[in-house]
Amino acid sequence: MKIKGNAHRAIEVLKEKRSVRIIDQTLLPHQLKWRPLKTLEEAAIAIKDMQVRGAPLIGATAAYGMFFGMREEASDKHLEATYQMLLETRPTAVNLRWALDRMRAVLAPIKPAERADAAWREAGKICEDDVATNYAIGHHGVKLFKDVLKAKKGKTLNILTHCNAGWLATVDWGTAISPIYQAHDLGLQVHVWVSETRPRNQGAALTAWELKQHGVPHTLVVDNEAGHLLQRGLVDLVIVGADRVAANGDVANKIGTYLK
Amino acid sequence: MKIKGNAHRAIEVLKEKRSVRIIDQTLLPHQLKWRPLKTLEEAAIAIKDMQVRGAPLIGATAAYGMFFGMREEASDKHLEATYQMLLETRPTAVNLRWALDRMRAVLAPIKPAERADAAWREAGKICEDDVATNYAIGHHGVKLFKDVLKAKKGKTLNILTHCNAGWLATVDWGTAISPIYQAHDLGLQVHVWVSETRPRNQGAALTAWELKQHGVPHTLVVDNEAGHLLQRGLVDLVIVGADRVAANGDVANKIGTYLK
Repeated sequence: MKIKGNAHRAIEVLKEKRSVRIIDQTLLPHQLKWRPLKTLEEAAIAIKDMQVRGAPLIGATAAYGMFFGMREEASDKHLEATYQMLLETRPTAVNLRWALDRMRAVLAPIKPAERADAAWREAGKICEDDVATNYAIGHHGVKLFKDVLKAKKGKTLNILTHCNAGWLATVDWGTAISPIYQAHDLGLQVHVWVSETRPRNQGAALTAWELKQHGVPHTLVVDNEAGHLLQRGLVDLVIVGADRVAANGDVANKIGTYLK
Repeated sequence: MKIKGNAHRAIEVLKEKRSVRIIDQTLLPHQLKWRPLKTLEEAAIAIKDMQVRGAPLIGATAAYGMFFGMREEASDKHLEATYQMLLETRPTAVNLRWALDRMRAVLAPIKPAERADAAWREAGKICEDDVATNYAIGHHGVKLFKDVLKAKKGKTLNILTHCNAGWLATVDWGTAISPIYQAHDLGLQVHVWVSETRPRNQGAALTAWELKQHGVPHTLVVDNEAGHLLQRGLVDLVIVGADRVAANGDVANKIGTYLK
């Protein structure tokens, strides 16, 4: 999505040297700092220190970490060591293991000499798949938004969200926030209540920042205010991310989601 | 209640010079600083800058502010000016107006020469009344606690609270927290979930501090965690203060109370 009017992704390929760059999200909203990743160690630190966070973005970063590992040494032993090293960077992120498994399944059967090239291509595919998936979430979500807006008297759709499920959590578009971007780009009047999301403030530091950069109207509120807003009928829709959804419909997500 | 083992009130009389001292609550929990109040202006600043907060404590501080005003100049004109100056320090605190009205009702009918002495006595009575009222809240509350504990399997009563309705909000004992202190002092096993209370963090900065000073077991949680605790059955009682209670039972209190 946009930063100062220019389109960006949360992880961007620097093709000349086969490296990537990420936004150091620990510095947002006060400072926008792009950080180049060129080695396995740098990719691991980026995940471990939460410079990148959000399940899809962690997966994409780990995929490039596998590429860096293979470029450094493409042996079977180092493939396994790379996999393990990256897996341990963030124990609860399911997308991390998913991306690493996908990369290993491609890399293990082929010759070491071919692994770096294959890893670069596969990491790129993981990113493109993520963008396509998130775009589709937005596309479906916008239909729902239109239905709710139609049923409502008034022109503005007020949407409450929690934590960050925007493009900073993914390669682009975001998951839960993707429909908001698409609705806004289509000219629908949307306004987002962004809950602060204690204790790590992802709503205040990330969601509010990315909505502002893209020009989407929003208001930052303390988590405590959500009940009051709902009670007063000031929320038309609540849309949040989900770390996981169980077969029975149970949802695991950031603390405070349940209160919404 | 206790600070480092010694009994204290949130506003303490220094009888020698007919002045009082308060804890500068803007510095808690990092620093315990007692601040003497000797003039009308100091009392007004203490309320305006939220060095004292909590409706009962604001009322008590304003009452001493009326005394300082009368000591400085006891004319009818200055009585009215003192009343107005203090009234404007905190527009939403109903106890402020209540205490000022009570003081004025005592002071207006009597001779100017008698006003300072009468104001000193009346301010003292307001404090003693507050302590007695809060003690009574605790006394009644403890009975309720015992009933809930009896019905519960398990020895510890888990109580969730929000914001600060403890002794720092009053002269002593606190309002909603008074039963907790009395239960603890009687040897009942109580454990308090203290919600942080964004945006001004009164739970984290004040309630957790005063419970710790008095030795009451407690856990500080982000506001977002309350729903999870309730859902998991980890809360036996929710007890919060109330700025006001309407005749129909509606309660006005700090943002986030509704979510509890």
